[in-house]
Amino acid sequence: MRPVQSSPVRDLLELTKDPGMISFAGGLPAPELFDVDGWRAAFADALSEPHARRHLQYAPTEGDPALRAWIADRQTSRGLPTEPTDLLVTTGSQQALTLIAAALLTPGAVVAVEEPTYLAALQCFRMADARIVAVAGDEQGILPEALAEVIEREHPTLLYLVPTFANPTGRTLTADRRAAVAALAEANDLWVVEDDPYGELRYRGTPLAPLAADSDTRVINLGSLSKICAPGLRLGWLRAPASVLPTLVVTKQAADLHTSTVDQAAAASYLAANDLEAHIATLRDAYRTRRDAMVELLPEVLPAGSRWTDPDGGMFIWVRLPDGADSETTLRVALGEQVAFVPGTAFYATTPDPATLRLSFTTNTTAEITKGLHRLATALRR
Amino acid sequence: MRPVQSSPVRDLLELTKDPGMISFAGGLPAPELFDVDGWRAAFADALSEPHARRHLQYAPTEGDPALRAWIADRQTSRGLPTEPTDLLVTTGSQQALTLIAAALLTPGAVVAVEEPTYLAALQCFRMADARIVAVAGDEQGILPEALAEVIEREHPTLLYLVPTFANPTGRTLTADRRAAVAALAEANDLWVVEDDPYGELRYRGTPLAPLAADSDTRVINLGSLSKICAPGLRLGWLRAPASVLPTLVVTKQAADLHTSTVDQAAAASYLAANDLEAHIATLRDAYRTRRDAMVELLPEVLPAGSRWTDPDGGMFIWVRLPDGADSETTLRVALGEQVAFVPGTAFYATTPDPATLRLSFTTNTTAEITKGLHRLATALRR
Repeated sequence: MRPVQSSPVRDLLELTKDPGMISFAGGLPAPELFDVDGWRAAFADALSEPHARRHLQYAPTEGDPALRAWIADRQTSRGLPTEPTDLLVTTGSQQALTLIAAALLTPGAVVAVEEPTYLAALQCFRMADARIVAVAGDEQGILPEALAEVIEREHPTLLYLVPTFANPTGRTLTADRRAAVAALAEANDLWVVEDDPYGELRYRGTPLAPLAADSDTRVINLGSLSKICAPGLRLGWLRAPASVLPTLVVTKQAADLHTSTVDQAAAASYLAANDLEAHIATLRDAYRTRRDAMVELLPEVLPAGSRWTDPDGGMFIWVRLPDGADSETTLRVALGEQVAFVPGTAFYATTPDPATLRLSFTTNTTAEITKGLHRLATALRR
Repeated sequence: MRPVQSSPVRDLLELTKDPGMISFAGGLPAPELFDVDGWRAAFADALSEPHARRHLQYAPTEGDPALRAWIADRQTSRGLPTEPTDLLVTTGSQQALTLIAAALLTPGAVVAVEEPTYLAALQCFRMADARIVAVAGDEQGILPEALAEVIEREHPTLLYLVPTFANPTGRTLTADRRAAVAALAEANDLWVVEDDPYGELRYRGTPLAPLAADSDTRVINLGSLSKICAPGLRLGWLRAPASVLPTLVVTKQAADLHTSTVDQAAAASYLAANDLEAHIATLRDAYRTRRDAMVELLPEVLPAGSRWTDPDGGMFIWVRLPDGADSETTLRVALGEQVAFVPGTAFYATTPDPATLRLSFTTNTTAEITKGLHRLATALRR
C-alpha cells in the first residue's frame, strides 16, 4: 500500500461539525447565499421532458455541450478567448489537479509551486511521487527571476499557481509577471497550471486577464462553479492546449467516465435561466463586508507584532503571529474556545513557518465573525 | 506526457450518436425504464428545506450518511454483512478502480485478471503502469488452480474480477470457486477487487453471496446505482477492509474531495421513498425478454460455426464467430448497415481472439433488437 497523508483541512472539518463552533477554517462559501430556489428549478428542468432520460444516462467524457458553450463564452468575456472544444468538464477543479498529475507527471518529476500554496494541490503532486520545489515570491506573487533560476536548476515539468487571490495568502500575480511567467514557460517547455477558483470574487481593484491569455500552448487554466454557485455540485472545468487536452480526456475516462450528467444539465439550465453576474455581485458585496469586518477587528485580536493581509478578493486572510508563536498550539487552545482556523504549516511545500495561520472570512456572518474573533483573542491571551 | 489509450467503447459511443444507428455496443441501461418522476421528486426533496443548503455545500469525503446506511443495509440483505463505516461513496464505480490503482499499485506491480474482462479496468491498471497477467478459466469463471499457479509464478498485488455476470462474457464464478479464491487471497496477501455492477440483474437461477462474504480482510467489493437506477448520477461505492479503507478515503480526497452532495442526497431520498426491489423486478422482466429475443435470433444471424453465451444475468452476450473471422472488419461493414457492437479484442489483456465480439441486449427494445440483428446478418453475409 502506498503511504498517504490526510488533508489537515478535511480533518479539521470533522472537528468543526460541533454546532457551537465558529469555524474560520474551511474555504466554504456562505450557505445562506446559495440560490436554492434557482437550483431546485434547474434540477426540475434537467429532469423534465424532452431531455430527462438523456440526463440520467451515460454521457460523453468531455462534458455537457450547453455547459461547455456557456463556460467558453464566460471565459472569453473574462479576457481568455475560449472555444467549447478547448474545455473538459471535471468533477470539481480538484479532479483537474489529479488528472493533470496522472497525465503529465512521472515519479520523480519536479513540480514548482509558490509557497505557501493550496495544500490539496501539494497532496495531489505528492501522491504522484513528484518532487516539489518552491519559487520565491513577494506580495505580488512569484518572482519571474526566481522562476528562471528554478527552471535552470531543477528542470520542473510543471508550475502550479493560484495567480488570483491565492489560497492561502490572497496574493495576486501582476500582469507583467503573468506575461513573464508565460514567456518562461514557452521558452522552457514548462507546463503552467493556473488554478482560478476565486478570480470572480474581487472586492476592489480592476480584474486581470487569466494567465492563460498570455500563452496558447503551455498554460492549463482551471475554473469552478464551487465558489460562485455551490461546491456540492462538484462542477469544475479545465481549458487546455490542444497538445494535452486529448490525454486529459482519456485520463478522465479512466477516472470516472464523466461528471454527473444531471448536475451538468442542471448547471446549463441554471446558467441559461439566471443572471449569474447579479448573483456574483451579491456575493461580492457580502464577502467584502465580511472581509472588512475581520480586517477591522484583527488589530485588537492579534498580539502585537502580528502581520496580516487585506486581500483584494478571494476568501482568505493570511496571518503571521510574532516570532516564536506556534499556530498549531494556538489552534488546540482555540478549539477549546469553540473557534477554528487552519495552521499555516500545511500550506508549505518545503520549510513551514509555524507562526502562520489562515482565516476564511466568507463562511460566517459579520456577527459570527465578531464573536469568533473575540474567542480567538481569548485563546491567544491564554 | 504519459502515453494513454482511449477506450474503444467510448470512441464507439461517438460513432453511435447517429440517430439511425442501432447500437449493441455500449453497456447502456434502457433509458425508457429510468424512473424519471421518482428522480425528479428526489432532487426536489434534496433541494428543499430544511437541508437544501447542506446539500449544495462541501461534504465529507466518505459520503452521505443516509446513503451509506442504505447501501450497508442492502449489501447485508444480499449476503454481505456491511456497516456504513465499511463504505466509501465513489463517483461511479469506475472511480473506485482508479482509487484502488492509485492506492495499491506501484509501477511494475502485477495485476491478475480473468480474460477477457472489463476494458476500462484494463485501461486503469495500464495507466498505473501495472503489468497485467491472465488467469485461465472456463464457463464457470477463473480456475482456482490456475490462480494458485499465477500467484506462485507472478506474485500479483491484486486480482480483478467481475464474478457475477462478467463483462463481457456474462460468466458467473461458482460459490465453491469464490471460497477457493478468497482462501488463496488470504493465504497469499493478495487483494481481490470484486466489481459487481450487474449482480442484481439476474434473470434465472439463484443469487450467490458476493465473493467479499468469503473474506473479511482481502476483498474490496464495488457496487453501483448505474445499472439498477441511472448511470448519469455517477453514484457507486466501495466496501473495503479496515486495513485499506482510510488510504482509499484519502486518495479520493485528492481525486475529487467528495462525490456530488446533491446527487448523493437525492439518491438517499429516492431510495427511502421508493421500492427499489419493485423497480429492479421491472428491469429484470424487460431485460430477460430482450436477452431471450436476442438469443432466439442469433442462430439465423450468425454464420455456421459461431458460438455465443446465454447469460443468467447482466447485460451482454459474448459471441465467437468461426475461426478466421475478424470482428473489427465486421464492425466496419456493420456500421455501414447502421448497426454497432464492440469487437472482442479490446477486452483481452494478453492475446486477443479477433473472432470475438460483445452484444449488449439491454439498451434496445425487442423490436429494435430484431431490426438490428437483421442488419447484422446482412453485414455478416457481405
